[in-house]
Amino acid sequence: MAIELKNLTKRAENYSQWYNELIVKADLAEQSAVRGCMVIKPYGYAIWEKMQQTLDRMFKETGVQNAYFPLLIPKSYLCREAEHVEGFAKECAVVTHYRLKNSPDGKGVVVDPEARLEEELIVRPTSETIIWGTYKNWIHSWRDLPLLINQWANVMRWEMRTRMFLRTAEFLWQEGHCAHATAEESEARTVQMINVYADFAEKYMAMPVIRGVKSANERFAGAVNTYTIEAMMQDGKALQSGTSHNLGQNFAKAFDVTFTNKENKPEYVWANSWGVSTRLMGALIMTHSDDNGLVLPPRLAPIQVVIIPISKNAEQLAQITEKVQPILARFKELGITVKYDDADNKRPGFKFADYEVKGVPVRLALGARDIENGTIEVMRRDTLQKEVLPLDGIADRVDGLLEEIQQNIFSKAVKLREEKTYVCDSYEEFKEKIEDGGFFLCHWDGTTETEERIKEETKATIRCIPLEGDDTPGVCMVTGKPSARRVIIARNY
Amino acid sequence: MAIELKNLTKRAENYSQWYNELIVKADLAEQSAVRGCMVIKPYGYAIWEKMQQTLDRMFKETGVQNAYFPLLIPKSYLCREAEHVEGFAKECAVVTHYRLKNSPDGKGVVVDPEARLEEELIVRPTSETIIWGTYKNWIHSWRDLPLLINQWANVMRWEMRTRMFLRTAEFLWQEGHCAHATAEESEARTVQMINVYADFAEKYMAMPVIRGVKSANERFAGAVNTYTIEAMMQDGKALQSGTSHNLGQNFAKAFDVTFTNKENKPEYVWANSWGVSTRLMGALIMTHSDDNGLVLPPRLAPIQVVIIPISKNAEQLAQITEKVQPILARFKELGITVKYDDADNKRPGFKFADYEVKGVPVRLALGARDIENGTIEVMRRDTLQKEVLPLDGIADRVDGLLEEIQQNIFSKAVKLREEKTYVCDSYEEFKEKIEDGGFFLCHWDGTTETEERIKEETKATIRCIPLEGDDTPGVCMVTGKPSARRVIIARNY
Repeated sequence: MAIELKNLTKRAENYSQWYNELIVKADLAEQSAVRGCMVIKPYGYAIWEKMQQTLDRMFKETGVQNAYFPLLIPKSYLCREAEHVEGFAKECAVVTHYRLKNSPDGKGVVVDPEARLEEELIVRPTSETIIWGTYKNWIHSWRDLPLLINQWANVMRWEMRTRMFLRTAEFLWQEGHCAHATAEESEARTVQMINVYADFAEKYMAMPVIRGVKSANERFAGAVNTYTIEAMMQDGKALQSGTSHNLGQNFAKAFDVTFTNKENKPEYVWANSWGVSTRLMGALIMTHSDDNGLVLPPRLAPIQVVIIPISKNAEQLAQITEKVQPILARFKELGITVKYDDADNKRPGFKFADYEVKGVPVRLALGARDIENGTIEVMRRDTLQKEVLPLDGIADRVDGLLEEIQQNIFSKAVKLREEKTYVCDSYEEFKEKIEDGGFFLCHWDGTTETEERIKEETKATIRCIPLEGDDTPGVCMVTGKPSARRVIIARNY
Repeated sequence: MAIELKNLTKRAENYSQWYNELIVKADLAEQSAVRGCMVIKPYGYAIWEKMQQTLDRMFKETGVQNAYFPLLIPKSYLCREAEHVEGFAKECAVVTHYRLKNSPDGKGVVVDPEARLEEELIVRPTSETIIWGTYKNWIHSWRDLPLLINQWANVMRWEMRTRMFLRTAEFLWQEGHCAHATAEESEARTVQMINVYADFAEKYMAMPVIRGVKSANERFAGAVNTYTIEAMMQDGKALQSGTSHNLGQNFAKAFDVTFTNKENKPEYVWANSWGVSTRLMGALIMTHSDDNGLVLPPRLAPIQVVIIPISKNAEQLAQITEKVQPILARFKELGITVKYDDADNKRPGFKFADYEVKGVPVRLALGARDIENGTIEVMRRDTLQKEVLPLDGIADRVDGLLEEIQQNIFSKAVKLREEKTYVCDSYEEFKEKIEDGGFFLCHWDGTTETEERIKEETKATIRCIPLEGDDTPGVCMVTGKPSARRVIIARNY
């Protein structure tokens, strides 16, 4: 795998190209032979696995269990919930046949026309329909509730314009689907899960997010209410990073899922669903990385520390390797993932560049001179600062340094967001400033009409109605009509 | 979820019905609305997760990394390797369109004829083709090798007759795909992985397996050689539980994947692939379970110990709960998964039956009388034996008991296999005895012709040519021609 490490386009030159190149140079993913689908390479997948493990633990701590539902959904299921079909049933992969046969011309295979399915099957774009079709048989009494289930799965949406991790035809995600006895419980769970996502984003991804509610227009198809976490990328654009939907009784009614309540009366079940996807990989990349490549938060880095020996001969290498052993042992004790890269087919300079572009948080370099002096060179990826430190107790120092890096990149992202967040009351000013990106706190009259006008004229959308911050009423910057509170408007991915 | 716990069909009455009922009663899985696809329910999925975690760790210990490749494979890819297309391209789900549209009659949606794909896409039945199509760009030099990659994924094969876990249209699995610089290295990895599977089966699933080589007829489509682990179910039938394929240079040639070797000459890459699937769930169920339900090996049980309080009133329950706290804490220290089931909407008798059918290895019951006496009732699921033991130090005792259960069910399975394994030299005798199941060690002349005759006349197949055991030559029990060594013949799932 020859990696071209140099010549990464600079963010200031072409942000979008920088992103695409970085993904390839850091060996995270690549386009596949199938339109709009990507291959997630081992290094990229290792980051996703760390995200998965952390989220999975957080879900289970709230009582959620995992399960698995079919990949293919009968076409008729999609039509059961009226809004849902409008939102999801259109651009999707349709299975129409179940057999191929040898081509009459002897070249390859063709679809066997006799093996046409009676009813077409859709590769799931999301699983509300098949899951609520199943819940019908699982839920009978209030004793069966709540039902708190999550699925890790692949889904497909036939997107016309795709970008690696951000928008791909196939993507990996988790989708939680909960069933409750009351509207209050379901709403509480919907909010609980958006808070889990916000915690994960801030504490693990070191990515600050704004929690809010989507406008009616931007709601999930079939939802009563959609909560979102919105993050700001370095170019000032918003990235919707996770959503949690209060589905009311819509899917229960569509699939006739009722339960006998404590008063012994039948009632429709209350639902919510919530998900995050490999899109978070795109968010992670764009929040922290720089012109030298990826910058990873220590808590999600597959390799947290790399140690590179600098030796002129086998004897020196053996000496260094011996010194490194107790350090590796101490890292292991501390629960830190460390890699000692003593491969002899690559020069130290190549390794330095490789781990830098891959965003390994801390790099240690150890040469013969260091051993004489009892020192070691430490480089932190976030600031690229180098320091020579005593070899004694280095693992424990690095442990603290990793925590410092985690905090530092979070603070840096918060600062960037603050700098690019504007309170704006003039639509003219907004139209001018939006060209440079940023989050705009503006008054909006709450109508879809105004929302669509803003979108059409500026390509910006209402990202969310924040759950926190200034909630004083005012007048819409576009129409002058009353506004309940400021909302966040931005261009987005 | 009302569970009908009683009236499980007995194995001796109808083994197949017992299996199907058990899966439903133990809450492992159920048929879905999509033909041949199942829903894996939370309890079943929790067992699969334990399998996954263990296998994933074992793979990584051998240097394997995870990655992810597309779900859909271009039709033309399947045709690149001649034998592979014969084996896999026929019964599969074919995506022909990428859009639905509103039905002209206003009812639901129909496939949009204008959204026909230029080239049909196949839902992967296995991923050799798309992966080797990708490896072409990853492998250039001997320095890029070996490439040791695994994928956890869903796959589809349009099976006509399906059975939950054993043979479903969609199933979950892992598929490892390795690339090597030499034939020797690739063969060594092929064998290494079948050994990993055998270790996992025996040490975690407590399921004895025979490692062997498949006959040419039973080989993976496109392989030079297929290794297998074969387990015996309680009805004497074989279940192929994992396979590892030496693919030679077949896929490298089909996808033109070459590398520059150390002598600076181009050479085709050597390949192997290996996989296990949710089929292992079926193997696990059928190896240990009994007429009372599931029996789980402690190392894969999602709940290893359940504690059930027996109380007449809230005061007693509070007293019991207090006593249980330090026991729960000690279990946690020991790394044992314990559930204290103090739910007040189910009676103890119901709970006993539920955990029994679910195969929880150890059940502890604690009543007011026990607290007076300083005792606790212990039931082990494998033997259904009950014992009253001192409350003091109970967690540590149970720790030992779990190990004992793990060993006991393995020994029991070994004993059953020994009892039902026969050395047989007469085809007449074979034809008679095969009706009652069992593994038959027979001489076979090595021809596909004889193999097919045996299959046609007895429904039994050559499960494998074992890697161990008696390897003295003899004469074929069917044709009298020379035989290199005894092979295992059995009916199978």
